[in-house]
Amino acid sequence: MAGAETPEEDTDVQMELSADTGDENSCENTQSSHRMLSFSDALLSIIATVMILPVAHTKIYPDQRFDKSIQKLLATKIAVYLMTFLIVTVAWAAHIRLFQIIGMIDDTLALLNLACMMIITFLPYTFSLMASFPDVPLGIFLFCICVIAIGLSQAAIVTYGFHYPYLLNRQIQQSENKAFYKQHILNIILRGPALCFFAAIFSFFFFPVSYLLLGLVIFLPYINNFIGWCRDKLVGTKPEEQPQSLEFFTFNIHEPLSKERVEAFSDGVYAIVATLLILDICEDNVPDAKEVQEKFHGNLIEALREYGPNFLAYFGSFVTIGLLWFVHHSLFLHVRKTTQFMGLLNTFSLAFIGGLPLAYQQTTEFAQQSHSEIESIRVSCVITFFAGIFQFAIWSTALLNEQETLHPFARYGGKEHAFMFAKLALYPCVSLVAFSSTCFLSEFSTTIFHLMQIIVPFAFLLLRILVRITLAILRSVTTLARPEETMLEDEETRLCTAEILS
Amino acid sequence: MAGAETPEEDTDVQMELSADTGDENSCENTQSSHRMLSFSDALLSIIATVMILPVAHTKIYPDQRFDKSIQKLLATKIAVYLMTFLIVTVAWAAHIRLFQIIGMIDDTLALLNLACMMIITFLPYTFSLMASFPDVPLGIFLFCICVIAIGLSQAAIVTYGFHYPYLLNRQIQQSENKAFYKQHILNIILRGPALCFFAAIFSFFFFPVSYLLLGLVIFLPYINNFIGWCRDKLVGTKPEEQPQSLEFFTFNIHEPLSKERVEAFSDGVYAIVATLLILDICEDNVPDAKEVQEKFHGNLIEALREYGPNFLAYFGSFVTIGLLWFVHHSLFLHVRKTTQFMGLLNTFSLAFIGGLPLAYQQTTEFAQQSHSEIESIRVSCVITFFAGIFQFAIWSTALLNEQETLHPFARYGGKEHAFMFAKLALYPCVSLVAFSSTCFLSEFSTTIFHLMQIIVPFAFLLLRILVRITLAILRSVTTLARPEETMLEDEETRLCTAEILS
Repeated sequence: MAGAETPEEDTDVQMELSADTGDENSCENTQSSHRMLSFSDALLSIIATVMILPVAHTKIYPDQRFDKSIQKLLATKIAVYLMTFLIVTVAWAAHIRLFQIIGMIDDTLALLNLACMMIITFLPYTFSLMASFPDVPLGIFLFCICVIAIGLSQAAIVTYGFHYPYLLNRQIQQSENKAFYKQHILNIILRGPALCFFAAIFSFFFFPVSYLLLGLVIFLPYINNFIGWCRDKLVGTKPEEQPQSLEFFTFNIHEPLSKERVEAFSDGVYAIVATLLILDICEDNVPDAKEVQEKFHGNLIEALREYGPNFLAYFGSFVTIGLLWFVHHSLFLHVRKTTQFMGLLNTFSLAFIGGLPLAYQQTTEFAQQSHSEIESIRVSCVITFFAGIFQFAIWSTALLNEQETLHPFARYGGKEHAFMFAKLALYPCVSLVAFSSTCFLSEFSTTIFHLMQIIVPFAFLLLRILVRITLAILRSVTTLARPEETMLEDEETRLCTAEILS
Repeated sequence: MAGAETPEEDTDVQMELSADTGDENSCENTQSSHRMLSFSDALLSIIATVMILPVAHTKIYPDQRFDKSIQKLLATKIAVYLMTFLIVTVAWAAHIRLFQIIGMIDDTLALLNLACMMIITFLPYTFSLMASFPDVPLGIFLFCICVIAIGLSQAAIVTYGFHYPYLLNRQIQQSENKAFYKQHILNIILRGPALCFFAAIFSFFFFPVSYLLLGLVIFLPYINNFIGWCRDKLVGTKPEEQPQSLEFFTFNIHEPLSKERVEAFSDGVYAIVATLLILDICEDNVPDAKEVQEKFHGNLIEALREYGPNFLAYFGSFVTIGLLWFVHHSLFLHVRKTTQFMGLLNTFSLAFIGGLPLAYQQTTEFAQQSHSEIESIRVSCVITFFAGIFQFAIWSTALLNEQETLHPFARYGGKEHAFMFAKLALYPCVSLVAFSSTCFLSEFSTTIFHLMQIIVPFAFLLLRILVRITLAILRSVTTLARPEETMLEDEETRLCTAEILS
């Protein structure tokens, strides 16, 4: 943990604060908030992802074709999943904002945070109600009540924090305008719940208005920000009106987002998606004792052979998720500071990652039916492609402002730049190739697809060696051409290259 | 993350190392292992816990009594859950040992680690096979193959690490005896897989021997250690034979265990258990549109009233898990160094935590049947009691060696000592009270039980105030009796107390 700290030195001032004061604070009952935040991240990431299970578990029997009613059922469930994912990530972003203000916690804050988490975990249920009964306003009413409760608990956390200022982050603690900040933050936090209050009232009369109001809750700050930006561009850039204004709660796309928490949330999503797979394997693919006795004369190996494709699918999916995590991990090693916009792109990538169990379920469900087989492979390819392309987008966004967001190695022209590019491009390319194979090759099957997935990591290693060799050649060519000014640096690189290739 | 670092300064030398060298290492392709380890912890904790789902989902219909066949089915599934939990925690402990040796990682190590994780996630399936077909040796054979594969991948990691010594932790990196260490570590890592190899062979002839050998794999190091300890006691303590021996890989119960990873693993278990509940709620408690139309004439609120007890049970369980996490969190804030034995006690506590979804399912399943109702409340009480009592045991163990394992505040006589004691004693006491209530009060029902669960956090806050007041009174009495030598310290305490009570 200490190792990941170095890159953040210059960005997360409030983190530094907690490191300085440590556990043995002036007042003995304050605590570092680190572990509570990791726990919250884990909870939120699981909640965001777990709603894919009801989608993946929608049973489609062999004699049943993909008709209207099943399509509608699937669409409903997918909508619930996406809405849950969206709203949980919004709640998560709000939670990050909140705890960028609060530096330290005590027992009361920990309990308030748990209460807030409990209400958030209840949100998916309100979505299930909304999706199952679109004509009944009860679902949206319950949802509004939840949002109001979350807002109130967050307001309680802020009020408590300002009441015991040693809990606040140092920037605010040392400022003169505490009262102004408190008002500003409470205003922003309570804006959403206030709109939800009206939405809850409207849900009894004319509930489309409620949906409109809810949409406003999510997009209002960005619209506000956009209008402000346009005005500034038209009228001409004004000087900073409020020199004391905060770095947080700006809703600017360049607003910093705790990199550590983005990583923790992503780890949670990847881990739960990887393990949902084995749950399916354990529940569905253990043969029934009676069936083995009757159909296979007690020969278990014979019985397991039937499940062969499922195991292949499992390993293929695990490899895909593992490697996508690996790319994400490599990417964030090179990122020094995350912004709200990068966080948003990461959320999109994760939403597709969360859809992978669905792809897995599809490719195994339809393994026998040759017609839908190709379709299910295509769904898998599309999901993988978008998961990969959004990771690539994070990288591109970071490159636009590379001085601030990236470590020197990964910047344009840096030693790791080309390799990082290759890594990020791998999955979009692989899924494109697989997708086009389904169009041209008539023999393409799920088995080949899963084998392809399993082979990819070796492509990674091959890539590593290829990039190294190319770079080494390029470098030796340029070294021959120019004088020995940066000989020392090259020496070091060649040493590393030699080590890797040995 | 930086905040939690202070207490570990003196223990985790290898963590410090990665902080010193940071991301921008001498060789650009090495990375801090922090995030990979968190991801592994998340994966392993989910795998360990998720096998409770098949147990909890065992359907018992209202007309079906608790007969032999269902008892056997449940027992099988619980056995699978416990075996999975045990073996995953053993694998996790081995993983910690391994990465106390490896300080930094590079891409190859990250991929090797992912491969190792993939094989570990497959272990639960082999248990399902073993439990469903106890007479067929295939399950145990597959299990042995997995263990051998895990051992080989770990050996590959160690060999790779010793081949590029800059990846090793500093203690080994600076030592003269690298070859000796390598041999020693490889010996220990490959001992298990070697025994499993024989177990795999025996599984074809006479598989009870295989089970015996597998038992040996887990207990051998401890037996070995115990024999050595007895010999030392009988013959007389010998001086250290190997002055160069490592702090790790001793299998001594005082061997240090990375506190950070114990916390990460525990967080994973608590988070997944808390969220498994909402999954059940969303899958089972959304009424069917047709049923609502027919039975309740389209009145959704009427229909939801039927599920009332389930929501109460959900909130009760969430509160229980949340508070048990909170106690764990408070406990580990005061712990400076964890040992293997404390890790073991923590594992037992977590195994019971993992059983809580079962308790939840039981109390909701039997909510209508008055006879089994009391029994299911008792099961919940027993599970909660053991989860709490093992947390208490961690604390007691830490107190035995408090100079080394605890922060000054939490030691005997420290400011937080009494309060920590009260926190840890709360859940065992509450579950004992609830258990005895089921014996004496004929009116005790699940509703009362869940209301009781929801009230507990307020008891926490009450406890805080009570303990503070008692301490303040005690302290003012002793201050009056003795001269003002420690006046300053008291001043500070009173200030804090005043702040909390205000």
